[in-house]
Amino acid sequence: MLDKEISQAVIGRLPRYFRYLGELKDNGIERISSKDLSILMKVTASQIRQDFNNFGGFGQQGYGYNVEYLHNEIGGILGLHQKHHLIIIGAGNLGQAIANYMNFERRGFIFKGIFDSNPELHGKSIREMQVQPMENLASFIQEQQIDIAVLTIPKSAAISVAEKLVQCNIKAIWNFAHVDLNLPNSIQVENVHLSDSLMKLSYNINRAENT
Amino acid sequence: MLDKEISQAVIGRLPRYFRYLGELKDNGIERISSKDLSILMKVTASQIRQDFNNFGGFGQQGYGYNVEYLHNEIGGILGLHQKHHLIIIGAGNLGQAIANYMNFERRGFIFKGIFDSNPELHGKSIREMQVQPMENLASFIQEQQIDIAVLTIPKSAAISVAEKLVQCNIKAIWNFAHVDLNLPNSIQVENVHLSDSLMKLSYNINRAENT
Repeated sequence: MLDKEISQAVIGRLPRYFRYLGELKDNGIERISSKDLSILMKVTASQIRQDFNNFGGFGQQGYGYNVEYLHNEIGGILGLHQKHHLIIIGAGNLGQAIANYMNFERRGFIFKGIFDSNPELHGKSIREMQVQPMENLASFIQEQQIDIAVLTIPKSAAISVAEKLVQCNIKAIWNFAHVDLNLPNSIQVENVHLSDSLMKLSYNINRAENT
Repeated sequence: MLDKEISQAVIGRLPRYFRYLGELKDNGIERISSKDLSILMKVTASQIRQDFNNFGGFGQQGYGYNVEYLHNEIGGILGLHQKHHLIIIGAGNLGQAIANYMNFERRGFIFKGIFDSNPELHGKSIREMQVQPMENLASFIQEQQIDIAVLTIPKSAAISVAEKLVQCNIKAIWNFAHVDLNLPNSIQVENVHLSDSLMKLSYNINRAENT
């Protein structure tokens, strides 16, 4: 199923399907038509069918989709049935916010440790993990088989830390530093630019006021 | 210029152009061709020209773009030349992280106050602002002419707080709660789902391992 190249735009929409289907499932809904799903999610039914056709379609359209099956299948495609070991680099407010966001663990992202270059933070306890110095990073990644590093550090430090993580054979970086990381293709990178979404909001305020 | 309906996909790309052009400007680069910009940003030159044509094209292609002019124009389109008054609702780690993210102020987003329903946090100082009780919200929004509310509260509280904000005539909500807010069209909403981007990363890890 993963042989075919699927566009990142489609992939980018899968978590939202997963989220809505999870809520339907929690509310005891067993089946849903693409039309009802489209109304709920405010996308077209045709978009939903096109997206799902990338993965074989997930069952007969006439009968609607089986919610639990679809939720489970999309979770599988997203790799959520596997466990991932995750560390956070940067123990400031954002790093702490992410460490405390328990929902990630439900999805198989296991918080294993937190690091910071600031000696004043070393030993501080964040979700029962003590903040470690950066010197421990390489050995910890190897010993604990860490897959994902979350970067919640300033832009100035992000590039050199990312290069170090590449040397440590990390599989993926979830980057909150305000710089796009361009790393070897073998490393998966997801750049999160919070201010980009704030600027989009600003555009829409501006537009609403001028029309 | 704002009369034409521009797709949210194009709008979603503008902050990234703005960010890259700001860096070029800071590095003293005065002109850049769409080709060089495309290499830097890893998008096609044709995409860049198409995006810019939505706004009249920004100058002659043969000569390249004037970096400062283009940066300034895109900033204007994004509404960044206007000041926006912003409050944060939810004084947990994420709310504090956003309050401390100074870069927003450079873009005209002025942090005016922070609110929380937890009495233990009331009076606590975050970036020289004392956390206020929710009871102050409505009058504060009116007195301080607040445009944007940032929601960094749990999903369970988000919908009722959002409804209250609508009654207070807030212009926009930047929503970090784990639920899509569906509000009247007069309110601009930008939903940020951090776990969606983590799931996308998980997909890409999974895919890399299986191909």
